[in-house]
Amino acid sequence: MEEINDYIKTNKERFINELVDLLKIPSISADPTHAKDMLTAAKAVEKSLIEAGCDTTELCQTKGFPVVYGEKTIDPKLPTVLVYGHYDVQPPDPLGLWDSPPFEPVIKTTKIHPDGAIFARGSCDDKGQFFMHVKAVEFMIRTNTLPCNVKFMIEGEEEVGSDSLPEFLRANAEKFKNDIILISDTGMISNDTPSITTGLRGLSYVEVEVTGANRDLHSGIYGGAAPNPINVLSEMIAALHDADNHITIPGFYDRVQEISIEEREEMAKAPFDLDQYKESLEIGDVHGEKGYSTVERFGVRPTLDVNGIWGGYMGEGAKTVIASKAYAKISMRLVPDQDWHEITELFKKHFISLAPKSVKVKVTPHHGGQAYVTPIDGIGYQAAARAMEKTFGKTPVPQRTGGSIPIVALFEEVFDSKTILLGFGLDSDAIHSPNEHFGIWNFLKGIETIPYFYKYYMALKA
Amino acid sequence: MEEINDYIKTNKERFINELVDLLKIPSISADPTHAKDMLTAAKAVEKSLIEAGCDTTELCQTKGFPVVYGEKTIDPKLPTVLVYGHYDVQPPDPLGLWDSPPFEPVIKTTKIHPDGAIFARGSCDDKGQFFMHVKAVEFMIRTNTLPCNVKFMIEGEEEVGSDSLPEFLRANAEKFKNDIILISDTGMISNDTPSITTGLRGLSYVEVEVTGANRDLHSGIYGGAAPNPINVLSEMIAALHDADNHITIPGFYDRVQEISIEEREEMAKAPFDLDQYKESLEIGDVHGEKGYSTVERFGVRPTLDVNGIWGGYMGEGAKTVIASKAYAKISMRLVPDQDWHEITELFKKHFISLAPKSVKVKVTPHHGGQAYVTPIDGIGYQAAARAMEKTFGKTPVPQRTGGSIPIVALFEEVFDSKTILLGFGLDSDAIHSPNEHFGIWNFLKGIETIPYFYKYYMALKA
Repeated sequence: MEEINDYIKTNKERFINELVDLLKIPSISADPTHAKDMLTAAKAVEKSLIEAGCDTTELCQTKGFPVVYGEKTIDPKLPTVLVYGHYDVQPPDPLGLWDSPPFEPVIKTTKIHPDGAIFARGSCDDKGQFFMHVKAVEFMIRTNTLPCNVKFMIEGEEEVGSDSLPEFLRANAEKFKNDIILISDTGMISNDTPSITTGLRGLSYVEVEVTGANRDLHSGIYGGAAPNPINVLSEMIAALHDADNHITIPGFYDRVQEISIEEREEMAKAPFDLDQYKESLEIGDVHGEKGYSTVERFGVRPTLDVNGIWGGYMGEGAKTVIASKAYAKISMRLVPDQDWHEITELFKKHFISLAPKSVKVKVTPHHGGQAYVTPIDGIGYQAAARAMEKTFGKTPVPQRTGGSIPIVALFEEVFDSKTILLGFGLDSDAIHSPNEHFGIWNFLKGIETIPYFYKYYMALKA
Repeated sequence: MEEINDYIKTNKERFINELVDLLKIPSISADPTHAKDMLTAAKAVEKSLIEAGCDTTELCQTKGFPVVYGEKTIDPKLPTVLVYGHYDVQPPDPLGLWDSPPFEPVIKTTKIHPDGAIFARGSCDDKGQFFMHVKAVEFMIRTNTLPCNVKFMIEGEEEVGSDSLPEFLRANAEKFKNDIILISDTGMISNDTPSITTGLRGLSYVEVEVTGANRDLHSGIYGGAAPNPINVLSEMIAALHDADNHITIPGFYDRVQEISIEEREEMAKAPFDLDQYKESLEIGDVHGEKGYSTVERFGVRPTLDVNGIWGGYMGEGAKTVIASKAYAKISMRLVPDQDWHEITELFKKHFISLAPKSVKVKVTPHHGGQAYVTPIDGIGYQAAARAMEKTFGKTPVPQRTGGSIPIVALFEEVFDSKTILLGFGLDSDAIHSPNEHFGIWNFLKGIETIPYFYKYYMALKA
């Protein structure tokens, strides 16, 4: 198994070039004008699975973008690992803030990545990360060291809520049947402090529309008498938090698992430097729920954020208008045991109740997902921890993070399998932001670590 | 003087065609890409003044767009009327809501305008209205009935705050010297209820920027811990009004002239149908300051409205981002004796004080103007009232309205002249909105009324 290091040394350039080619495809699932690019990306992923040595591959049709399937069966009686990832990426805007075009990958060194990092949309989230699995499996197949069966499910709608996947999964449960699921779509604390994500927050994402008059009005003539939907929307958004930054939606916290004093003490031990956090974001202070530390706020507490707002005149100069409509996109990060369907309904009811009689309000749910917690005493987690220990020389820290992968809770329901969130990205990699990047060191370290997971998993399973 | 009716009958088509040509020029002062159109419009206005019979015309350079000057001197010893108007127009967006292109005028009948109305940006505000004066003066010159001197000042920056005008006016005070100023840039109650605007609100217009982290962040990783500038901006905007919709800026109301019980009783007599108001705007309720009627709210009370807001992801679908910056354009309508410079400073200080430590706030003043009240016992008002009485068959109602023409207070300061706001538009003409229009009847009624103003003004002056 130590030959993985030689294999990486020999094939490093090729690995990087193949990833760069994949990153050139602008597979933006949220933007209908990129539908063709989505298909191009799906086909490129399928090709990479064939080249890695899969016996069977397929572009599986869904209601939305295709799911790329790949399979290498050693022996049907052996356990099966399912690798999940996604080939779609976040929209790259605001484009003006990128130092190089988002779909023209460049490699540059940074303070955190002295060996270089690939700058491109999707480099870390998630093309670079699922591609580590493709290359690790390629190694195991070519060196005859794959100790069990492996399946791939690389989907194209993760960034827009995996809308088609529940129906698709239920209809294809047999095809994707597995014993353990491996996902690299999260991060670790730092290159010196490996960690494994053991908790993911759930999500409820909605869009709201507030309508005042039936047309834009002159603020001089109507100001002060007609409803101003922007002022009203601002007031409604403000009313969603109280002075302590608790969320005011009735019932919102009812199912929230409060963390124990022991767990809080454990979390407080994880390396986290508040000053450095503030400095790296250039903020005067953090901003969150009273009574919780920053690590708790983004790890184990539910939140509500406005992701976008717009209305009225946004151009150069001044226009004295009262808009007819104002809009916002609002998302809530959820924790066990909040149910995203229920939270969406609670939000809707509460938000509408906040509106004065003078306006009309529309709430449109976009998508959501349940929160998830990986048991750290299971053999999946143990195998992943040992693999990281082997390649990093340090025991990884179990870590609850704030991101959501809506599909994970669904996997548990459909397959009754646990998911291991073995991510190699860093928080500073700017996923979902301009100048997203992924360290070359991290990319190769992932390829090195993954085969050990298979080895230890089979050893523990025996 | 009765020959004005014959003159209108004979020249009606030409008047309308000339106005249509002027409306085709997209003279949007707020949009730098239309700088050339601004010059085209200014030249067209100058040409119309020459054709009307002015002795002298000039495109006067300013720091910004030119002021069109025109003059007809009968006798230097006679009084001089100064006609003010503006050839610039509001930006036409949102374009999608126009039934016909904003700069391709069409004439259509409406319920309120059975004789037809010209639909185009600027038709009512203010090309159609100042053009009534050009045509009325043309009539008086051609029929030798102009009883005094007349000057025109048609500027190009009214919709962006008349920034260049104060300096220009002070430097050219002698050239524009006058005894009374006539402006048609307001409306009247209805075609059955003529009215003259006797009060204009002042204005302070600012842009605000709230900055959280130094880059857009992933809401899953940072949500709940890093500041969200959209949430913060919403809370700051919400905090600008209290539960009774009073403005919370300390000192904001200090100089506000409270209206007397008598004045309130007088205002309550003006025809105003609240149900029809709500119905025409399709709103469930009006929305304003507690303790004041709707007419008082838009007429004599100061207000604060957000005219535009933007930040984060505004595209299709969902993006789980925490924006780095959020923006809003905010304007305050002011009443005597609020000073717009002082109010701008009070706003700035208060707004910055509302920000939590986690964000940075920038407040940029755009422009402003003082409120103005026309004395109804002056001969200017009396002449205008008699002129309307003559052509409408009804005594006009003196009316305070909510709009602002920042230049009016400046005129009083520079020329020590009173301004008469003789507007012929209607509130329903949708100025500053899509489908702006101006009734043909109103346009011609203005041309008919204006010569009587000159006649009665000279009679009262004698």
